[in-house]
Amino acid sequence: MIILKIGGNILNKPAALAEALDYFAALQGPAILVHGGGRKASEVIAAMGREPKMIDGRRITDAPTLEIVTMVYAGLINKQVVADLQARGRNAIGLSGADGNAILAEKRPVKTIDYGFAGDVLGANGAMLWQLMDAGLTPTLCPITHNGKGQLLNTNADTIANETAIAVAKARPAEKVSLRYCFEFPGVMKDIKDPNSCIPELTPTSYAAYKADGTIVGGMIPKLDNAFAAVAAGVGEVVIGDLPALKEGRGTKCVK
Amino acid sequence: MIILKIGGNILNKPAALAEALDYFAALQGPAILVHGGGRKASEVIAAMGREPKMIDGRRITDAPTLEIVTMVYAGLINKQVVADLQARGRNAIGLSGADGNAILAEKRPVKTIDYGFAGDVLGANGAMLWQLMDAGLTPTLCPITHNGKGQLLNTNADTIANETAIAVAKARPAEKVSLRYCFEFPGVMKDIKDPNSCIPELTPTSYAAYKADGTIVGGMIPKLDNAFAAVAAGVGEVVIGDLPALKEGRGTKCVK
Repeated sequence: MIILKIGGNILNKPAALAEALDYFAALQGPAILVHGGGRKASEVIAAMGREPKMIDGRRITDAPTLEIVTMVYAGLINKQVVADLQARGRNAIGLSGADGNAILAEKRPVKTIDYGFAGDVLGANGAMLWQLMDAGLTPTLCPITHNGKGQLLNTNADTIANETAIAVAKARPAEKVSLRYCFEFPGVMKDIKDPNSCIPELTPTSYAAYKADGTIVGGMIPKLDNAFAAVAAGVGEVVIGDLPALKEGRGTKCVK
Repeated sequence: MIILKIGGNILNKPAALAEALDYFAALQGPAILVHGGGRKASEVIAAMGREPKMIDGRRITDAPTLEIVTMVYAGLINKQVVADLQARGRNAIGLSGADGNAILAEKRPVKTIDYGFAGDVLGANGAMLWQLMDAGLTPTLCPITHNGKGQLLNTNADTIANETAIAVAKARPAEKVSLRYCFEFPGVMKDIKDPNSCIPELTPTSYAAYKADGTIVGGMIPKLDNAFAAVAAGVGEVVIGDLPALKEGRGTKCVK
């Protein structure tokens, strides 16, 4: 089964979103779509006369911001994506983490920074997601979770994709789970300026070597750390690439 | 199985909403909750500097209004209600009509008034709703539907409750479906000023007599016409009452 994660670089461009949904809707067999937020939440925050609060590029989710991201992620984006998938013949069902208790999280503890109503994932509900998929439905997850006590929380969509992949793999070990991150580049690049430098496959050993020699640096490291945590937890592969790469079976494949 | 519909008179008051969710969460067996919109959409429309457009008390859903009602009904209200039900131990799953193709609608044809993106229901997906209930989930429907071609539509919540009741009854005729409308009065009143004048039971025959002698008039007529249409289509009973009445098994029961 396949889990595809799409973020702002797709959601902000109608043509790219349509192409991504064409690709996703045509996948064979059970699948889950995870989408992020994109810039719409910031637009609504501005339209309502509020200032987005960011620290180090991360959104601070105060109570009014939580209302707005819940409206935008779980309402506007999720339902339009679901309707678009329905129009493509894919029987999507949109979910926040509260729906069917899909993703349980806890409010991030305050250390140096108070992120407000940001949720750290405790676990995804693999059994319930399989029930939906067995019924022919395609879970479509937005980055809103809950704490089981009535509190909604704003959660990173990459984390949701990763935890969901781990949970569905654990719930049905015989099934090979392929987690696909659609991002800005054709894959993990040895040289960001050279489009032909994509690394086709990474193992924990080769990843460690690329980190040690300085080929893989910066923001790719948390992304790949998460990918290898998923692989170690039973996910069959994690593929990172842009939409053309994913469509053509290229990108960087992270395997055991 | 029980379908409960709650509207603005409940959604606008946190204490009333909590009491309604306590009642709903404690119901035995399969159940579906249908909620309306309440005043939050108008507040968000105002906060975004727009004017709600109404003709004869009905909202005109232009494109920006559709975005806002989708955000508020399918995002904010639906997800908070789902999280609140989860906190009460009821495994709710929030749905718009697009999710699992729960409610298919068509854009209301323009006759004298152009209602914009208002959806008239073509039918609810009883089989899918039973699949969810059989999996232990509690469908929680908001008043947003779709046309199957990617267009979301704003739809009356009473209509959604009625059509959902008919569809689940048709999909499983052996099951007695009880549709319960939570509204402002203890039931259908013979005399609106006399709290003891509630009519405990209505049949098509007694309803016709009350209409003929002028006891039942005005806004109750379309409500009761819908109720008897549901009963004629296989719904076991339609109960109309306020929350205390519904909790105590009172209200007006419409039966065959």
